[in-house]
Amino acid sequence: MTRSALSQLGQRTADPPISWLMHLTLAHPHLISLAAGFTDNESLPVTETRALLERALVAGPIGQKALQYGPTLGDLRLRELTADRLRALDGAPIAADGYSAKHTLISNGSQQALYLLTEALCDPGDIVLVEDPTYFVYLSIAQSHGLRCRGIRLDQDGLDLQCLEETLESLRRDGELPRVKMLYLVSYYQNPTGVTTSFAKKAGALKLLKKYEKAAGHPLYLLEDAAYRELRFQGPDTHSALAVKGFANRVLYTGTYSKPFATGARVGFALLPEPVFTVVARLKGNHDFGTSNLVQQLLRHALEAGRYAHHLEALQRRYHEKSAVMVAAVRRHFPKSVAWQEPNGGLYVWAKLPGRLKSGPKSKVFKLALAHDILYVPGWLCYADDPARPKPDSELRISFGGATLDNIKTGIARLGEVLNGLIRP
Amino acid sequence: MTRSALSQLGQRTADPPISWLMHLTLAHPHLISLAAGFTDNESLPVTETRALLERALVAGPIGQKALQYGPTLGDLRLRELTADRLRALDGAPIAADGYSAKHTLISNGSQQALYLLTEALCDPGDIVLVEDPTYFVYLSIAQSHGLRCRGIRLDQDGLDLQCLEETLESLRRDGELPRVKMLYLVSYYQNPTGVTTSFAKKAGALKLLKKYEKAAGHPLYLLEDAAYRELRFQGPDTHSALAVKGFANRVLYTGTYSKPFATGARVGFALLPEPVFTVVARLKGNHDFGTSNLVQQLLRHALEAGRYAHHLEALQRRYHEKSAVMVAAVRRHFPKSVAWQEPNGGLYVWAKLPGRLKSGPKSKVFKLALAHDILYVPGWLCYADDPARPKPDSELRISFGGATLDNIKTGIARLGEVLNGLIRP
Repeated sequence: MTRSALSQLGQRTADPPISWLMHLTLAHPHLISLAAGFTDNESLPVTETRALLERALVAGPIGQKALQYGPTLGDLRLRELTADRLRALDGAPIAADGYSAKHTLISNGSQQALYLLTEALCDPGDIVLVEDPTYFVYLSIAQSHGLRCRGIRLDQDGLDLQCLEETLESLRRDGELPRVKMLYLVSYYQNPTGVTTSFAKKAGALKLLKKYEKAAGHPLYLLEDAAYRELRFQGPDTHSALAVKGFANRVLYTGTYSKPFATGARVGFALLPEPVFTVVARLKGNHDFGTSNLVQQLLRHALEAGRYAHHLEALQRRYHEKSAVMVAAVRRHFPKSVAWQEPNGGLYVWAKLPGRLKSGPKSKVFKLALAHDILYVPGWLCYADDPARPKPDSELRISFGGATLDNIKTGIARLGEVLNGLIRP
Repeated sequence: MTRSALSQLGQRTADPPISWLMHLTLAHPHLISLAAGFTDNESLPVTETRALLERALVAGPIGQKALQYGPTLGDLRLRELTADRLRALDGAPIAADGYSAKHTLISNGSQQALYLLTEALCDPGDIVLVEDPTYFVYLSIAQSHGLRCRGIRLDQDGLDLQCLEETLESLRRDGELPRVKMLYLVSYYQNPTGVTTSFAKKAGALKLLKKYEKAAGHPLYLLEDAAYRELRFQGPDTHSALAVKGFANRVLYTGTYSKPFATGARVGFALLPEPVFTVVARLKGNHDFGTSNLVQQLLRHALEAGRYAHHLEALQRRYHEKSAVMVAAVRRHFPKSVAWQEPNGGLYVWAKLPGRLKSGPKSKVFKLALAHDILYVPGWLCYADDPARPKPDSELRISFGGATLDNIKTGIARLGEVLNGLIRP
């Protein structure tokens, strides 16, 4: 017997980079990890969560409801609170399309929503347009499903629309447009770059996608992954793609309560137009017929009692402080020839090394950093396999999310030392 | 534009029967549902859960851990407790294969484990052997993935091994064995029939599957879905297929803490051999990179503090009582010509109507029952589309899980009235 019984998807699915990063973390007990996308431990709402769960778990029908199966789509009140909150964030009128609780689904973090959407839309060989670079766990989903990704360049205000148009045009010429299903956009304080795509660019992207639908033969969706939206600590908020007039039926919006509130609860959500909503709801039924009702009741009470908003303010101040500490340390310790940008939100600073200096897993920089007990995410991991360009390999994602202030200072100082040793001025 | 952008899976995935049942429930506000697979509301451990979460959410690192991301595979201690508990239930020695925490994965209920396993093993057109009848939500997973199911008859002590052998033999003759991936067995107090497959029959099934592996060209797995195992209220426990010597590398075991403890927490698990374990772990990373850590800490504390075992004893007594009430009512109110069997565990009584009387959604029985505000699950829904036989349509799944004692009595009395009106003595 030579073959395994695995499916094509099962055989294809590669080991995710995160298990390699985990392995390194475990193998280096004194490691300072600037790699993990963890949230800040000290500001996790432990006391609030205990109090809110006491409220959710009062004896009798209310507590029983929290411990019983709930609807597959999620708790109706939580879906309403979610849709209402999003409409308010977007400053949209009550009657605006796209903010209906009826089309809101609760998921296990927004990660599950990304998975369900990919399953609902993409066959092996299909093409997803992604930012170049993008969220590396999404690349694992795409790899597992046998998808081809095409990277769209990023400017400081987000997606490069000219590059998007050129890519769509080139796909049209090659007869590949019918295989394109969506543009995946991490629109706020992007993982890994920290870049936010402006509202004007979201509108522009939607118009471009629409223009190519005829040649595609089907809708071309914008999947807006707004995971970091609420982790904004400076600058104005940007409206979501749902607010672009006339395009609500092309926007797949995913968000999460994991990062802004109780990370370990893993409650995310998606707002979706038909026919995608119905299909995703059916798939969710097959996956798990509904996210844990208990953690949904936690979020519902947090939102209703105003504890969510209150916690978020404190959290935004905390990340502002952590970002400022990292930015100050980078400014002080990194060579001037390393390019980076101060983030306005999220958890990440993205740095680009000069010249031909590499940052990948086999590079001197990575190995020396590890020898000094510092781990970062090599930028290389965040790029799709795109035949149109070689994979960039000179960037670093460094996170201020999970590390303590002291570890941020020490970590950046040591990383600076490594870089200064390798970069001649 | 005529086409949708949906994937083949997305287009194929049908509306699940559960949404139709839900719709009927909402449309009949006075309905007594004997259809829902809900657990008993009154015995849900509301007070215990509150106390256990207080313990999990103490200020400082312990509480922070519960609210942070955890490992994709699940909390290590919970995986150990799970594997140990299972080994103890099976009376297996410490060194026995198949009970390793390393090969235990925590999932969002066992439903997610069923989904992950199907994804890992099955391509469209592949064949899964299922009990005839079987768990209807599994049939939705199979339908969505474009799988073909073949039904294996059930005796009172479980799977009919002769039917299994004949089916395998017929698939071999037709050259279809390479498309067979596994036998899906709901082994304890089966949903929907309440039947338990004996240990001897599990061993027999594993041997038969092994015999046909050469012709299949790959391993043929036994997927043992033990969701109802701990809801045993009379009769001896049966060891799992993991305890069959020499076959641990062919058993995929799934279980859940949802039904025996906190239903709304949705914590399940799978014990899997390689290479399936590694693939399922990767897929779990792509799905949601780990079940909510908060609900995992709840289960960990419940198991460690003995609250789980304590609650389970009370729960078993409670279901024994509810089952007895249903059984007494069925004995009193159903016509003698209706066949049924007293369950030893689980949540269901399965009844077979005499002669040509139908029980399906369009039948007189179903419509009259609904007119009397009684809902049951038509047995028809629990049968795979198997070209080898017409779909049986004269059975009812009636659940004592979610209904109150009064509703069980009233519900069965009314259902009996409907049946007596249609069945001439």
